[in-house]
Amino acid sequence: MKIVIIGSGNVATHIALTLYKKKADIIQIYSPHLANAELLASKINASCTDAVREINKDADIYLFAIKDDAIETIAKALQPDKNAILAHTAGSVPMDVFREYAQNFGVVYPLQTFSKSSGIDFGEVPVFIEANNNKTEEKITLLAQMLSGKIHYKSSKQRMQLHLAAVFACNFTNYMYTIASDIAENANEPFDILKPLITETAKKTATTSPYNAQTGPALRMDTTTIEKHLRLLSTTNNIQQLYKLLSEGIYQRHK
Amino acid sequence: MKIVIIGSGNVATHIALTLYKKKADIIQIYSPHLANAELLASKINASCTDAVREINKDADIYLFAIKDDAIETIAKALQPDKNAILAHTAGSVPMDVFREYAQNFGVVYPLQTFSKSSGIDFGEVPVFIEANNNKTEEKITLLAQMLSGKIHYKSSKQRMQLHLAAVFACNFTNYMYTIASDIAENANEPFDILKPLITETAKKTATTSPYNAQTGPALRMDTTTIEKHLRLLSTTNNIQQLYKLLSEGIYQRHK
Repeated sequence: MKIVIIGSGNVATHIALTLYKKKADIIQIYSPHLANAELLASKINASCTDAVREINKDADIYLFAIKDDAIETIAKALQPDKNAILAHTAGSVPMDVFREYAQNFGVVYPLQTFSKSSGIDFGEVPVFIEANNNKTEEKITLLAQMLSGKIHYKSSKQRMQLHLAAVFACNFTNYMYTIASDIAENANEPFDILKPLITETAKKTATTSPYNAQTGPALRMDTTTIEKHLRLLSTTNNIQQLYKLLSEGIYQRHK
Repeated sequence: MKIVIIGSGNVATHIALTLYKKKADIIQIYSPHLANAELLASKINASCTDAVREINKDADIYLFAIKDDAIETIAKALQPDKNAILAHTAGSVPMDVFREYAQNFGVVYPLQTFSKSSGIDFGEVPVFIEANNNKTEEKITLLAQMLSGKIHYKSSKQRMQLHLAAVFACNFTNYMYTIASDIAENANEPFDILKPLITETAKKTATTSPYNAQTGPALRMDTTTIEKHLRLLSTTNNIQQLYKLLSEGIYQRHK
């Protein structure tokens, strides 16, 4: 199974390195950013290109790990062999993005946050797959099994719900950390001092539902503390408004 | 050093159990909820009461781990010996809450989220202390050292900033988990599927600043995905509004 990886960002890099370890045959990396493509290709003994017309025509699977908006553009330009499979790795892009441009297509969506700098145990990452026919599903399953031991078959609709949940569980959570870090920094306190709290808050989810784990002034509608906190927050950005909306949300969810 | 603990909730319980392990002399638990007071007192061989007038007059330290609003009420009713110390464990209550009711007073604030059901390594919890005179500071330091190896001296102002940061790092973060869990549940997906993502997002803070760790549609101002997500969210509660505000906040912070 010859694989071309379309993309050289965080997701493309983690997928490529994991597949390479599993002896998968990645023949080429395509990226509009040639330096990134070269760097990744050099790590996995593959060729690379930044020109869509130079993408290898012999691959069995083209795995798209690029910006959502670029998937269709490149799929359209690609004109793959009729037996080839186009698959993407995006949470909120329907499988049907490929329908006009290929006969076999699907999705391999890993539910995780990837940074180039940090290692991930990909074997533990839930991977959601989807395909437009049985033969394609079999092949995508083989590919996904090289990545992870936790494969789930999900429709585009289900996948989008999971992606939405992930935005709260990861992206918005990380933004809470950013605001906490900004507040600490403004008070000349190191962010480090908050890390045991961050670790414990995440750790609790292993044993307690987040609903039952909720603590804090908003849960108690402790308006005295809430008012004190609002006075400390700047009104020049939307953090004060955010504090209010979050507190109200917690109160409403629990009352 | 004879200690009376005022309170029987999460914080009171963790403090009492930790001090008991360190052979501290806790003579009494006071709580308006007698059953809770009895349960905790039985675990540490202390007496207990639910009547303020029955609080032991011989203690060296009265440690308040109760609702913020109740601290002053009980301090006022307590009329302690003039050598006794009143100390509380609250993030956003100034030390001066005790000024009218005692000669020696201070604060022992542990920056952590406590649940009765989950064990904490208290030795790693940052504890912020403050006192109104040197002798009291010495005694409060001795008490705090029994709890944790990470003691910091902070003013009431600094402590309140840290508490505010903690609300984002813990309470609001946990609310993000709750919303993610609600979305998953509505889509008939188990919350478990999100746990590797939650763990990794928290883990990243050990090596990467949250600013640099940010990922997701809002960072890229991927309006196509954002619009899809907004359509999935109910307008009957404030979650859709929250999604917008968080996305806008991330974009503004990073642009």
